[in-house]
Amino acid sequence: MLRELSRAECDLVLERHRVGRLGIRDAEGVYLVPICYAFDGLHLYGHAASGRKVSLMRRWPHVAFEVDEVEDESRWRSVLVRGRFEELSDDAEQARARLRLVRAFDGNPQHVTAGHGHRVALADAILFRIRIEDVSGRAEGFPDSPSMI
Amino acid sequence: MLRELSRAECDLVLERHRVGRLGIRDAEGVYLVPICYAFDGLHLYGHAASGRKVSLMRRWPHVAFEVDEVEDESRWRSVLVRGRFEELSDDAEQARARLRLVRAFDGNPQHVTAGHGHRVALADAILFRIRIEDVSGRAEGFPDSPSMI
Repeated sequence: MLRELSRAECDLVLERHRVGRLGIRDAEGVYLVPICYAFDGLHLYGHAASGRKVSLMRRWPHVAFEVDEVEDESRWRSVLVRGRFEELSDDAEQARARLRLVRAFDGNPQHVTAGHGHRVALADAILFRIRIEDVSGRAEGFPDSPSMI
Repeated sequence: MLRELSRAECDLVLERHRVGRLGIRDAEGVYLVPICYAFDGLHLYGHAASGRKVSLMRRWPHVAFEVDEVEDESRWRSVLVRGRFEELSDDAEQARARLRLVRAFDGNPQHVTAGHGHRVALADAILFRIRIEDVSGRAEGFPDSPSMI
């Protein structure tokens, strides 16, 4: 049975993962890229080197973010977040974002940036968050009760 | 080492999978949704019920499609396809698209639509393809030689 996930179930999916896909508008259509993230219930925190992703989000801050769990075509969950890019420039905000990311990645700052070819240390990264405006999710072939997940 | 994937490596990733994420523009920003697909080197074939996804692609046909293989934050591959939505209305084209999808899903039409809660039989689905205009890919922590994948 295809069904909608509750907000609580969506939050559990967002909690369980550390990599999702960010969708951003660009001049032609859409740019999609996987990113590491941390989730605090209201925001998704991320980091980036200076480049395409950040340039596009500065121009088009309404972004989408997707996490899914696909076992096979008849057993999957997916969660879609719609939200707004906010670049963190305040020192205290940056420190909090770094802390959240480090906590989400086993307390090891190198794990947060490991997927970036070590080009950016977390201390030098651009820090941002996606302020969550809407969350929706769907599942097929998983139990109905969130307590059974 | 973060590196760019060759087109041949990207094609291997697209060949290996049957589920990816489609990114489409919408009025606010971006809509992201996982879809089942089949790949023939030039196009990605998909099917849909009448609804948001198809309405948006009719309006904004420049879409993005992403497939990734994430083992952990320091070992991943991701491929981004940019292309153009083409709805298949010709009987012969529809039959070819159905055949490609069925072949990609173990020869079983029910597997193609299994993730849709059985709301749409393949015979009744809207069939479309994404004409591939650009493919790019990146990897971290995987060997350099495509032959080693």
